[in-house]
Amino acid sequence: MNLVVHTDEFAYLSLETLENFIYDVMVGVGVPKNDSKIVADVLIASDKRGIDSHGIARLKMYYDRIKKGQQLPTTKLTIERETPGVAVINANNGIGHVAAKRAMELAIKKAKNVGISMVAVGHSNHFGIAGYYALMAVEEGMIGICGTNARPAIAPTWGTEPMLGTNPFTIAVPTDWKFPWCADQATSTIQRGKIETYARLNKKLIPGWVIDINGEPEIDPKKTLSGLAEDAAALTPLGGVGEDLAGYKGYNYATFVEIMSSVLQRSSFLKACRGVRNGKDVPFDIGHFFIVVNIEAFVDPDTFKKSVGNLLRELANSKKMPEARHIYIAGEKEYAAFKQRSKEGVPISRETQKEMLVMQSELELTKYKFDFHV
Amino acid sequence: MNLVVHTDEFAYLSLETLENFIYDVMVGVGVPKNDSKIVADVLIASDKRGIDSHGIARLKMYYDRIKKGQQLPTTKLTIERETPGVAVINANNGIGHVAAKRAMELAIKKAKNVGISMVAVGHSNHFGIAGYYALMAVEEGMIGICGTNARPAIAPTWGTEPMLGTNPFTIAVPTDWKFPWCADQATSTIQRGKIETYARLNKKLIPGWVIDINGEPEIDPKKTLSGLAEDAAALTPLGGVGEDLAGYKGYNYATFVEIMSSVLQRSSFLKACRGVRNGKDVPFDIGHFFIVVNIEAFVDPDTFKKSVGNLLRELANSKKMPEARHIYIAGEKEYAAFKQRSKEGVPISRETQKEMLVMQSELELTKYKFDFHV
Repeated sequence: MNLVVHTDEFAYLSLETLENFIYDVMVGVGVPKNDSKIVADVLIASDKRGIDSHGIARLKMYYDRIKKGQQLPTTKLTIERETPGVAVINANNGIGHVAAKRAMELAIKKAKNVGISMVAVGHSNHFGIAGYYALMAVEEGMIGICGTNARPAIAPTWGTEPMLGTNPFTIAVPTDWKFPWCADQATSTIQRGKIETYARLNKKLIPGWVIDINGEPEIDPKKTLSGLAEDAAALTPLGGVGEDLAGYKGYNYATFVEIMSSVLQRSSFLKACRGVRNGKDVPFDIGHFFIVVNIEAFVDPDTFKKSVGNLLRELANSKKMPEARHIYIAGEKEYAAFKQRSKEGVPISRETQKEMLVMQSELELTKYKFDFHV
Repeated sequence: MNLVVHTDEFAYLSLETLENFIYDVMVGVGVPKNDSKIVADVLIASDKRGIDSHGIARLKMYYDRIKKGQQLPTTKLTIERETPGVAVINANNGIGHVAAKRAMELAIKKAKNVGISMVAVGHSNHFGIAGYYALMAVEEGMIGICGTNARPAIAPTWGTEPMLGTNPFTIAVPTDWKFPWCADQATSTIQRGKIETYARLNKKLIPGWVIDINGEPEIDPKKTLSGLAEDAAALTPLGGVGEDLAGYKGYNYATFVEIMSSVLQRSSFLKACRGVRNGKDVPFDIGHFFIVVNIEAFVDPDTFKKSVGNLLRELANSKKMPEARHIYIAGEKEYAAFKQRSKEGVPISRETQKEMLVMQSELELTKYKFDFHV
C-alpha cells in the first residue's frame, strides 16, 4: 500500500491502495462495512475509467457531508410503490451509491420479468458516476439507462441563474467489442467535476462552458465554483448559449432528467437541491431514475451484440477530418484509461493529496504510508 | 377550402383545407382511408405546432416514395415478439405514421398494466414529427418518449461522413400549464427539415450546423442537401464540431437512438437507411421506439402535474440575460404557433405551393381552387 510513482504535479497510487483507502475512510465515518464496499467500488470505477473528477477526488466531499450530518452514514431504503415493472424507493437521506446500486438491482430483476423496468429513487444523495449503474445492466446482458438531478448548475436558455443540476443522462449497451458502449455524460456542456479538476490544476476553462451573471463567458474555474453557489455563474446546457447552436435542446434534456429524478418520487428539484437553506446545511434531497431494457425480450442477445458491434465499427471506420486520427466510440477512452491505470496507477493531484492526508490523520489510518510531496 | 391570405413569399391556407388536401392526396396514391386520416392528422399537427419542415412541406416526399413503390401504401403490421411490457412490430415497409401510431397505442396499453413499456418498430418509414406520438401518451396522462433513425446525416465526432440519422430523441410530459412540456428534437444541432426550409426560402445556414468534406463550415442549404446524399456534407451533432463544446455527447445520443431504432428490431442502420442501393431506390428500412411511463404507478397524477408545473414556473421565472425577454419551456413556442395558425392559417412557401399544384393536377383533385402566385 505505497506510492508507486511521483511527479511534481501528481502522485500515483495503485487502484488497490485507493480502493482500500476509500473503504477505510467510509468505515471511519460510520458507514456500514458492506455499504462502504459499495462506495469504494463506485468511486474506484471512476478512477479506473479515467474520470478523475468523480473518484478519489470526491471522497472528501462525501466525508465532510457525512461528518457534519448533512447526509446519513446508514442507508435505510423504503419501497413506497411497486408494480411488476416499476418501483419508487425512498433513500431517507442515506448514501446515494448504496441506494442507486440497490435500485438498479431491483430494476434488473423487474426487466427480466416484463421486458423493461424503471425504478425511481427520491430523498437521496450524490451517487458518483452514473455510468456505474448503467453498466450493471450490461453485466446482465441488458441496456442500462440512468439519470440523476444534482445541485443547481445549468442556466436555462436565455437565463443566467444556475437552476438545473448537471443532470447526467447516461446509457450503457452490450457489444461484441472488448468493452460496452457507455455514454456517461452530463446534459451540460461540461460537468461540475471537470471544473473542480481544472480548479485543482489551476487551468483556464474553455469559453462556452460557463457564463457569468451577464451571460458573458467565464473562464476562471475557482470563480465559477464560488459563483455557482452564489448565482454569479452558471454552466451552459449542451448546445451552448442561446438558440443558434440549439442550446435549448441541452436545456430540455436537463429538464427531462430533473423531472424524472424528482417529481415521480416526490423529491426536491432545482434550487431546493442546493444543500443550504437560510445559511444552514440541509439534505440535498436529490433523486435518480434507472431504466433497464431486457434485450432478450426483443431479439437474440448474441445477434444484438454482433449487430451493435457492426454499427459501431461502421462509425469508427467512417471518413475522418484531415487532421483527425481516430473516431472514438463511447467507452473507448475509458477502456484505454483502465488498461493504463491498472499498470501505472491513478494520478492524484496535489489538492487531492492534501485532502487524503487530512482524512488519514483525522481517522488515524496509520497503515497507509503516503509519500506525498505536499 | 380556399386561400385565406397571400404575400409574395407565402400563401396562407387554413388548417382544415390543408388537412383535407393531405388526406385526399394519400387516398389518391392508394393509402386506405383510415390510414390516410392518420397521415393527415400527424402532418397537420406539425403545421399546427409551427414546425414548417414536417407538415405539408413533406407531403410530396411521401407521395413520391409511395408512387415509385419505395414504400407501400398499405401497412401490414406483424407483432414479432411480445411480453407484458414490450413488443416488437414489423411494419413491412408500410406507412411510418400508421405503424408509429399503432405502436404507441400498444405501448400505452402495456404501461397501464405494468407501469412502463416499450414498443420497437422495424422495417418502417419516415413517420413525421416524433412529438405527435410522445403527446399521445400525455393525452392518457402518461410520459411519452420516442425516437427514430433516419437517412444518414450526422457525422460522428472527428468524422466528416454523414452516418447517423438526425435521430430525434423526443419526450412529452403532462403539466398543469395550458400545454404539455414537449421536447421534440433531433440529436443533431439542426434537423434536415430545417435545412429544406432554408433551401426553399434561399436563406444561408448558420455556421456550425453543417460541415463539408474537410470539416469546414458549410452554409449553403442546397449544397448541403445534395452533399448529404453524396457524402460531401454532414450535419453536426448537438454540441457541434470536435470535443471542446462536447459534440461527442450529441454524437453519443444520436448513436443511442440509432441502436434503439434498429438493432432491437433487426432493422437497418446508418448507411443502409439511405433508400438507395447501386443507384436503385430501395426501402429505407428504418425503425422507431416508443417508451411510456405510467405516472400513476409512481405518484398521484394531479400531484405530478402540479409539481412539474411548479418546476417549469421556477425555470421560466429565473434570472434572464440582460437582452433576453423570455425564458421558454419546451412546447411553449409550439402552443403560441397553434393559437396563431388556428386564426391566420399556415404559411405555404412558393416551393411547397408548386408541389401542391403538381399533386393536385396529377390526382385531379379539382375541388381545391388554390389562388397560388407561382
